[in-house]
Amino acid sequence: MAGFTARVFQKVGVPEDEAWITARLLVDCDLRGVDSHGVNHLKVYIKGIQSGFVNLHPKTEVFSQAPSTAIMEGDRGLGFVVGYRAMMEAIRRAKETGAGFMTLRNNTHIGASAGYSMLALEHDMIGITMAQTGPLVEAIPPGAMARGVGTNPISVAIPAGKKHPFVLDMATTVVAWGKIELAQMKGISMPEGWFVDSEGKSVTDPTTIKYGEGGLLPLGSTPAMGSYKGFALGVLVDILSGILSGGKAGLQMVREGPGISNRAHSFFGAIRIDGFLPADSFKKAMDEMIEAYGALPTLPGVKKVYIAGGYEAEITKERKANGIPLYPKITQELKELSEELGVEYDL
Amino acid sequence: MAGFTARVFQKVGVPEDEAWITARLLVDCDLRGVDSHGVNHLKVYIKGIQSGFVNLHPKTEVFSQAPSTAIMEGDRGLGFVVGYRAMMEAIRRAKETGAGFMTLRNNTHIGASAGYSMLALEHDMIGITMAQTGPLVEAIPPGAMARGVGTNPISVAIPAGKKHPFVLDMATTVVAWGKIELAQMKGISMPEGWFVDSEGKSVTDPTTIKYGEGGLLPLGSTPAMGSYKGFALGVLVDILSGILSGGKAGLQMVREGPGISNRAHSFFGAIRIDGFLPADSFKKAMDEMIEAYGALPTLPGVKKVYIAGGYEAEITKERKANGIPLYPKITQELKELSEELGVEYDL
Repeated sequence: MAGFTARVFQKVGVPEDEAWITARLLVDCDLRGVDSHGVNHLKVYIKGIQSGFVNLHPKTEVFSQAPSTAIMEGDRGLGFVVGYRAMMEAIRRAKETGAGFMTLRNNTHIGASAGYSMLALEHDMIGITMAQTGPLVEAIPPGAMARGVGTNPISVAIPAGKKHPFVLDMATTVVAWGKIELAQMKGISMPEGWFVDSEGKSVTDPTTIKYGEGGLLPLGSTPAMGSYKGFALGVLVDILSGILSGGKAGLQMVREGPGISNRAHSFFGAIRIDGFLPADSFKKAMDEMIEAYGALPTLPGVKKVYIAGGYEAEITKERKANGIPLYPKITQELKELSEELGVEYDL
Repeated sequence: MAGFTARVFQKVGVPEDEAWITARLLVDCDLRGVDSHGVNHLKVYIKGIQSGFVNLHPKTEVFSQAPSTAIMEGDRGLGFVVGYRAMMEAIRRAKETGAGFMTLRNNTHIGASAGYSMLALEHDMIGITMAQTGPLVEAIPPGAMARGVGTNPISVAIPAGKKHPFVLDMATTVVAWGKIELAQMKGISMPEGWFVDSEGKSVTDPTTIKYGEGGLLPLGSTPAMGSYKGFALGVLVDILSGILSGGKAGLQMVREGPGISNRAHSFFGAIRIDGFLPADSFKKAMDEMIEAYGALPTLPGVKKVYIAGGYEAEITKERKANGIPLYPKITQELKELSEELGVEYDL
C-alpha cells in the first residue's frame, strides 16, 4: 500500500524521497489500526496539492537562538515533509544537548502526530509532537457558545525493550474529527458527550452535522467531568505550536486552502534517555511496567490492561500478516484517484 | 498565613530559608483558590516530618549525562525543598541550552505541581512539572478491576504580558483526591463518573469511601468518553517521573511513610521562550489570545471564557484583598497544631 501511495504523491509532483516519507507516515497509521488518519485521507492531500495551496518545494529555513531550540519555517509545504524535517532537526539537537525542541510554522496538515514522535524511538529518545488544527477550531470551550479550539492532538512516544513502545496520540477533544467521519461512514450513532449543537444540546446522529454548526467537546465532556482540562490541553497545543512559532492560536486564524489543508503550526521535541540513565536499564524498566499492567485483574470481557500503544502494536502484527482492510468507500475513492492520475491500482 | 506556616515548619526542624520556600508554595495554593493543596495539608506534612520518614537534611546529588538533562537524588527530603531545588536546576540548564529537564527520585509529597512550574515564569520560561503520586495508585485503569495508576498531575506554566499567565495543573484522573476530601468535608455528594467501587459501579457518597476499596476514574471517566487518554497521561507521568529517574511506576511501588508522605518521583522542565522568539512578542501574542477567548460568546450564566490560570488569577486578586477563607475543620486543625508545637496562632 505504501508503494501505491508513494506513486500517487510522485505523480502530482512530490519528489521521490519525500513521496516515500509521506507514504510511510500515512500507511503506518493504517497498519496501527488508526483508520481515521491513513489512506482514507489520500484524496484530500492530493486535492490540497492540486489546488496549489500546498507548496511542493518549501524552503524550510531554521531560526535558532539556543542549542536546544529553534523555529522552522514550513513555507506551506506538504505537512508530512516539513513535519519530518522538523522532527529530525529536534532529534539532531537532542543528540548534542540531551533535548531538542522545534516549532514549525506554516505547515499544511501533518496527519497523525504519532508518526513523528515514533521517529525518535530508534534513537532511544522520547518523541513529542503537538499539532494545532489551525483555523478549523472544531471544539467548543467550556462555557462558550461558539467553537474556539481545535482537536489539537498531543503525542508522546517512548521506547521499551522487548515489549511495544509507549505511544500516546490523543486529540485533546473527546474524540478526533476522524471519529465523526468514521461514524458517518459506518452509519452508526455517536454517544452523548462527543458533540453538541449551537445551544449546547447533545447531538448523537453524525449525519446531521454541518460544518460550522455546533462542535466537539473537549476531553472530559462536561465541566463536572473535567472538560476544562481537555480545553487547557488544547490551548497548550495552540500556544506551543502557534504562539511559540511566531504564529497564532487557531481561534485567531482564518481559513485558507481546501478541506483539511489549512495553514497551521506544530511543535516537535526529542529527549535523550541516556541524558538521564543508560537506555538499556530504562527499557528494561519499561518492559517490567508493561508486564505489571498486563497482570492486573480485568473486568469481565476484557482480555488485559494495555498501556498506550499496546493495542496498536497487536493490530500492526495482525495487519502485517493479513493485510489492511479498507472500507468500501475508501477503496472506491482510491480507485478513482488511480484512474484520474493514471497510477496503477494494486491494492 | 505564610509567616505562621513557615514558623511551624521551622519548629519541627526545617531550616529557615527552606521553611519559607515551603510556606510560600503551600500558601500560594490557598491564594489561588486551590484549597485542596494548601494549608489544609499542613498537619499531614508535619506528621511526615515528626515520624522521621521525611529527611530534613537531604543530600540532593545531581547525576548528569548531557547539558540539558539530569537526575537529582531527592534523598527522601521534604518534597517542597527538593522539588524547588530540582526546578531551579532545570531553569539553570535552560539558561545555557534553551531547555532543561530534571527527574527527581525519592522525594516525599511535593504538594501542587503548579508552584514549581510557576517558578519558571519570572525567567520568561515555560515551566513543566509532573509528579507521580507513587504507591497510592488512586485510580482504576480502563478495563481493570483494581487500582493501577496515581492521580499523577501534569502542570505547565507559560508567561503572558499584561494578562495572567497560562497555568495548567491537572490531575490526570477526573478529579484529584483532594476533591474527594473536600466533598467529604462539605458533606456533598459526588457526580457519577468520578469514583467506582471494586465491581466498577459508581460511588457518589464520599463518606462511604474506604482506602483500598474502589478508586478514582481516569480523565474521560469511561472508554467511550476517552478514559484511555486520561490513563495514558497518568502512565506518561509515571514513566517520565518514575522510570526516567531510575525509579519505578506507582503500580510497582510499595507504601511507606504515613498518610501522603510516600516515596515518589517527579519530573521538572524549563524551556526558554527566547530560544525561539523574543519574549516580548511572545507575551504580546499570549495577551491577544487571552483577549480573543474573553470575547467569545458564552452560555447563559457564564461570565466569560477563561483559559487555564485565569480564574485562579481573579481569586488571587480577591484573596490578597480580603484574606483567605478557611473551612472550620482546617482552622481547628491549625489551632491544635499551634498548641501542640507552641507556635503562636495568628491567622
